[in-house]
Amino acid sequence: MAEILTDAGYSVDSFHRDAFRLVQPTGRGHRSGVDAMLLAAALPHGITGSVADLGAGAGAAGFAVASRCPHANITLVENAPEMTDCARRSIALAENRPFHDRVRLLEADVTLRGSEREAAGLHRDSFSAAIMNPPFNSASDRATPDPLKRAAHVMAEDLFETWLRTAAAIVRPEGLLALIARPASLMSILSALEGRFGGARIVPVHGRAERPAIRILLRAQKGNRAGLTLEPALVLRDRENRVTERAEALTNGRAALFGD
Amino acid sequence: MAEILTDAGYSVDSFHRDAFRLVQPTGRGHRSGVDAMLLAAALPHGITGSVADLGAGAGAAGFAVASRCPHANITLVENAPEMTDCARRSIALAENRPFHDRVRLLEADVTLRGSEREAAGLHRDSFSAAIMNPPFNSASDRATPDPLKRAAHVMAEDLFETWLRTAAAIVRPEGLLALIARPASLMSILSALEGRFGGARIVPVHGRAERPAIRILLRAQKGNRAGLTLEPALVLRDRENRVTERAEALTNGRAALFGD
Repeated sequence: MAEILTDAGYSVDSFHRDAFRLVQPTGRGHRSGVDAMLLAAALPHGITGSVADLGAGAGAAGFAVASRCPHANITLVENAPEMTDCARRSIALAENRPFHDRVRLLEADVTLRGSEREAAGLHRDSFSAAIMNPPFNSASDRATPDPLKRAAHVMAEDLFETWLRTAAAIVRPEGLLALIARPASLMSILSALEGRFGGARIVPVHGRAERPAIRILLRAQKGNRAGLTLEPALVLRDRENRVTERAEALTNGRAALFGD
Repeated sequence: MAEILTDAGYSVDSFHRDAFRLVQPTGRGHRSGVDAMLLAAALPHGITGSVADLGAGAGAAGFAVASRCPHANITLVENAPEMTDCARRSIALAENRPFHDRVRLLEADVTLRGSEREAAGLHRDSFSAAIMNPPFNSASDRATPDPLKRAAHVMAEDLFETWLRTAAAIVRPEGLLALIARPASLMSILSALEGRFGGARIVPVHGRAERPAIRILLRAQKGNRAGLTLEPALVLRDRENRVTERAEALTNGRAALFGD
């Protein structure tokens, strides 16, 4: 994979006020940022056990959980060779030494099921949480010319169905699911949650307070039967286009989305 | 019905800064207020043609549309005799004379289908919009001891499926649907919208900014294929528990939820 990376180049980016760094492809592939950081803020600070970052890419959200939650071990689950190469390089970075023994890479396809999923190392009831920052754009969106970026961004209609099926299988009873997605995916997400995760808490994310939400953050619990809650929105930038205090704290691992 | 009303009593309540009044049962049955006023604010001010208020009760939302939208005719669709009696009295009130020729009552069951629905006067493709403020509490909620109130509040699992089926049938192509509901009903609503109404715009309604939403307001268009939009929230009361300026304007027919 080194040639591809040399070909396309890669960067080393700093997150959580330099608590960790991430090797990411430049110009090609999906580059992580605010979304992954917000997703990591959706888990409780004191979470223990193993957290699966499904479709981890270069590992941004998973590393952010490792940085924010000192008692969690992280499994980055990724299948695209270009991204697993970045994830491996990220884990190996000297600057990420504090997390070496808590972050591991599992090269596996999130959509596997049954014995194939088990064989791939995604064991039933074995994770305390699954997080996902899945490919965003629906198939009907404008196609992107970059095939690697397209693989990360264009999702099949049933992405949430297949990804949440895996999440529900590998998370232990009462374990958590956290995800970040577009508001337009809400119906697919709620439909895929049914019978798997409940007590969903949804936080709309607005770039600006007066504009529609650009993302939703969601946390739910396996086996919970409660209905969903629509929480107060998160606003990323104020009227002067400055990052809000809350967004700043959340993206830097200094605050918890749900206060825990 | 007079005995029931005498027995239980009724009140005449003023809305939209006394632009119209409403006869409502006191102590028994569903009493309308903020929800119905907010629902009426979800339609465009300039809407023309007929608007169906499905499950109209005493007619609060329908009258509020008549008061706010000068070019709309309103059909109050209601089946419960206690409520149709109130609606009839409301229409007959001298104070409501400005709306006498634009508000009519249709005694019909919203859940009818096909030829029965046609025979009841709910004609296919004949309304420019349907609005609904349906029975709120799910069957799993704490039961209320008042049977009349229970009839209005306890809804069958498939309420939105049957009500939106009727709404989609009677609204003309490109016509509108507006509803107010609990956040917990979001999944049922989105599911019932599928293949019928699209381009849904959802406004979370929070009693207080820092607490979860207590209602969602939704507007969608028949035949529209666009995905949903999560709009900035509406907050009803500020930190000092005063009604916010926006809530005040919306509930008094002085503002439009979607700016039109």
